[in-house]
Amino acid sequence: MNIAKMIDHSLLRPELTTTDIRRGCDIAAGRAVASVCVRPSDVELAAAALAGTGVLVGAVAGFPHGDTRTSTKVAETRELVEAGADEIDMVLHVGRLRDGDAAYVHDDIAAVVAAAQGRVVKVILENAYLTDEQKILGCRLSERAGAHFVKTSTGFASGGATLADIRLMRATVSPHIEVKAAGGVRTLDTLLELHGAGATRFGATATEVILDDYAARERGEGPTAAAPAPDAGY
Amino acid sequence: MNIAKMIDHSLLRPELTTTDIRRGCDIAAGRAVASVCVRPSDVELAAAALAGTGVLVGAVAGFPHGDTRTSTKVAETRELVEAGADEIDMVLHVGRLRDGDAAYVHDDIAAVVAAAQGRVVKVILENAYLTDEQKILGCRLSERAGAHFVKTSTGFASGGATLADIRLMRATVSPHIEVKAAGGVRTLDTLLELHGAGATRFGATATEVILDDYAARERGEGPTAAAPAPDAGY
Repeated sequence: MNIAKMIDHSLLRPELTTTDIRRGCDIAAGRAVASVCVRPSDVELAAAALAGTGVLVGAVAGFPHGDTRTSTKVAETRELVEAGADEIDMVLHVGRLRDGDAAYVHDDIAAVVAAAQGRVVKVILENAYLTDEQKILGCRLSERAGAHFVKTSTGFASGGATLADIRLMRATVSPHIEVKAAGGVRTLDTLLELHGAGATRFGATATEVILDDYAARERGEGPTAAAPAPDAGY
Repeated sequence: MNIAKMIDHSLLRPELTTTDIRRGCDIAAGRAVASVCVRPSDVELAAAALAGTGVLVGAVAGFPHGDTRTSTKVAETRELVEAGADEIDMVLHVGRLRDGDAAYVHDDIAAVVAAAQGRVVKVILENAYLTDEQKILGCRLSERAGAHFVKTSTGFASGGATLADIRLMRATVSPHIEVKAAGGVRTLDTLLELHGAGATRFGATATEVILDDYAARERGEGPTAAAPAPDAGY
């Protein structure tokens, strides 16, 4: 199993410096992960750093609160694509989903999908704020609006990916829609559990620890020590 | 002292429903505060709810991480102004400030000031991530870029307004630039202390408790019980 190609190496904390972003891209390239997930202002930097490596550039839109205007999300997504983003991780409008305003939530996502011009779009539900019923509605609206992934969390709310949520999301969307787990994916064991529940992409900052651990197990060694938990932003 | 006219009643949490926003606008109107501070998608709603009340509509841009692209912040600010925003609370690029990239930070703010077309612009530094030297640079760049306020925090980072930061910011910017304290302003005592240190505008969610307490003191009564602390988003 190629775990590395299921990892979006996350570089989203607001205080990261340009040096941090460059270092993160080096890690992503060295580990041949699926992608980096960067802040909107870092797309050119990441695209330059990762050119020719096979590692994709993902960028966030309407992040992390999802409450920017649809027109702003559209303008932002267009700019991200022009700057070189291969994938877009957008946050849906959490408040409007809680309102039960299905038309707003659908149209907001569909507008971003259109602006992404065929690039992969992952829709972050931010489950920490939602009931199961709202999570199901969010998944259905994401699929109907043309998204390619539903994703649990931004990593900046009070809760992240849970087994129960991955199972619920996997059961809700059609087979061709993938589920991304993000928020709290700090160890190989967590990743494997979430994979067993149906997640096929993972947002992580502890990428090196997870992959070192996996390599050690493949060699028949025991697991390495657990990674120190970063406090947020994965 | 008209404390109410120093309060921006904050309605920024991502999970707030439309009902929550309407209720918040009613409180703001009833208490005749300076403004509400709303999410970008709620400007029309707030402008309609507050028409004729004398309470201004403030909206956030590049919020809460400050790492959206300058062009996105500009598009967002234009839309906020068109939708009826009287004031813009923008987040500067925290990572670039930590890089020491003064040109980027200045130009990012100046572009938003231009897009705001004369509306008041408050620049959020997000002090929790900054050294004193970086806070001073952020204040100077904000002033040079034409901002009207410097502001301590979004309310979504690990720390909020502190007395030391208000003193530092007040001492750094020219007298015509105001200082807004946000993040953790939950009681009248905190507000008064921060006011004594130089803050003239306050972001708050506990607006009713603060103003009830002030009214009681003005009547010569003792302070009311302290408000239960909201966990974030003020």
